[in-house]
Amino acid sequence: MMKQAHLDDFRIPFFENGKKAHAFALDDFDTRAKPFSAGSKSADRERLAELAVRLDELQERLHAQRRERVLLILQGMDTSGKDGTIRAVFHETDPLGLRITSFRAPTLDEAAHDFLWRVHRYAPAAGELAIFNRSHYEDVLVPRVLGQLTDAELACRYQHIRHFEALLADSGTAIVKCFLHISKDEQRRRLQARIDDSTKHWKFDLSDLEARQHWDAYQAAYRDALAATSTERAPWYVVPADSKSHRNVMVATLLLRLLEGLKLEYPPAKESLKGVTVA
Amino acid sequence: MMKQAHLDDFRIPFFENGKKAHAFALDDFDTRAKPFSAGSKSADRERLAELAVRLDELQERLHAQRRERVLLILQGMDTSGKDGTIRAVFHETDPLGLRITSFRAPTLDEAAHDFLWRVHRYAPAAGELAIFNRSHYEDVLVPRVLGQLTDAELACRYQHIRHFEALLADSGTAIVKCFLHISKDEQRRRLQARIDDSTKHWKFDLSDLEARQHWDAYQAAYRDALAATSTERAPWYVVPADSKSHRNVMVATLLLRLLEGLKLEYPPAKESLKGVTVA
Repeated sequence: MMKQAHLDDFRIPFFENGKKAHAFALDDFDTRAKPFSAGSKSADRERLAELAVRLDELQERLHAQRRERVLLILQGMDTSGKDGTIRAVFHETDPLGLRITSFRAPTLDEAAHDFLWRVHRYAPAAGELAIFNRSHYEDVLVPRVLGQLTDAELACRYQHIRHFEALLADSGTAIVKCFLHISKDEQRRRLQARIDDSTKHWKFDLSDLEARQHWDAYQAAYRDALAATSTERAPWYVVPADSKSHRNVMVATLLLRLLEGLKLEYPPAKESLKGVTVA
Repeated sequence: MMKQAHLDDFRIPFFENGKKAHAFALDDFDTRAKPFSAGSKSADRERLAELAVRLDELQERLHAQRRERVLLILQGMDTSGKDGTIRAVFHETDPLGLRITSFRAPTLDEAAHDFLWRVHRYAPAAGELAIFNRSHYEDVLVPRVLGQLTDAELACRYQHIRHFEALLADSGTAIVKCFLHISKDEQRRRLQARIDDSTKHWKFDLSDLEARQHWDAYQAAYRDALAATSTERAPWYVVPADSKSHRNVMVATLLLRLLEGLKLEYPPAKESLKGVTVA
């Protein structure tokens, strides 16, 4: 029996300005690990069902109170399960208070602005739970792997990201960032499954195979981006994600811990409604 | 004859982190001064006409090149002439490449986000000349005068503004910020003129008189905001603005100097069009 895992064991050490980044490798995290699993796939499903109900309760309070804002950022290689996580974790959540934004390759209009322009507008309003399915982190991954940014430009972007997330945090946004961590082998199986099932072809693009050829470069880019942008108020967590059911339970657990910490309450009862009878 | 004035004599010293702000008072700048006047009102009008034509030429190149971005921020007390400056300085400029945004009291949706959310979306795209008629600076003026921000919150906002403007600058945006500086006496005359002319009533709101009662508090708030946010890549200029014709010439001159510095050129001729005859 392994010792009880703690969520913070999977947190990337916080970036400290002027200090050399804490040495860690993504390989230090086993993609196959299931530290928050309830023991089996079916037990995980039951566990997730409970968590999803609790998530719905807290999200209703968030929505009713209209004071706090929550931002969940999901990143990961192709097939790491960003879409699947959203579907599984939020299936009980009222869509009215959710704001999910999926970022793809920048449009002409988006590319004509700074790289944070397009994400800023989808930042959560008071009372909203926003989910970024991919995010501004793509802009320190793709251009780096393609060799389009100098080290200085990259460092500059990391800093702008830290400043931007501090702006959101200062405005009452609680932030949690999840890197869905799968192995290259697991990606092969999932891509092959998409190819072998024509009803999954819409999820597949030949460019996915190209990105796969740069696997190591992307892992290095992720590692550096996570190290440079994990902060106390916008921490990064590595989510072992070869097991989908574990991935879902862990993301839900992380988000619930964040929401529990906000002390969300329904707004006080309205005195004006006391004893009122509707005719 | 006074010595030749230089634009940079009217620039607020750059903010330096950790250093005590350079001591200056807005009163050091005479609102009645006309350092960039051509000598008379009519001479100023002629001068402005020349400047406006040059401005149009450079703006067309900016628009054609679609590489640089330009942001002009106008701030000032009520009646200081923000609207009038835009009308006078840009009357020759092609509206296609201009993006003018007038910021008023935040809407519910705007107030539900961080204070830079609403301005970020109107930042200039590549090839655009954007003008902010009022701006994010309102959010370090009004709430301060109304006592809604602690000193620490105010300092935090100044820092977010510096970071935000650095993000725009790093993305190729040239920024110039003008404080249209009028005297309390001049404001009295202009407000009275609005009251006395019913076709100007649409420009008048009783709350303008309320803000006027806090004149000294607003001047202090402006002084501190300018001192905390004048930077090399986003400098503040004090524009003596009791004289409208001087104000217009000075703003146009500032903006032209900025545009001249960008070395704007038409994109290279297309080889594919060489010798082509349209049938």
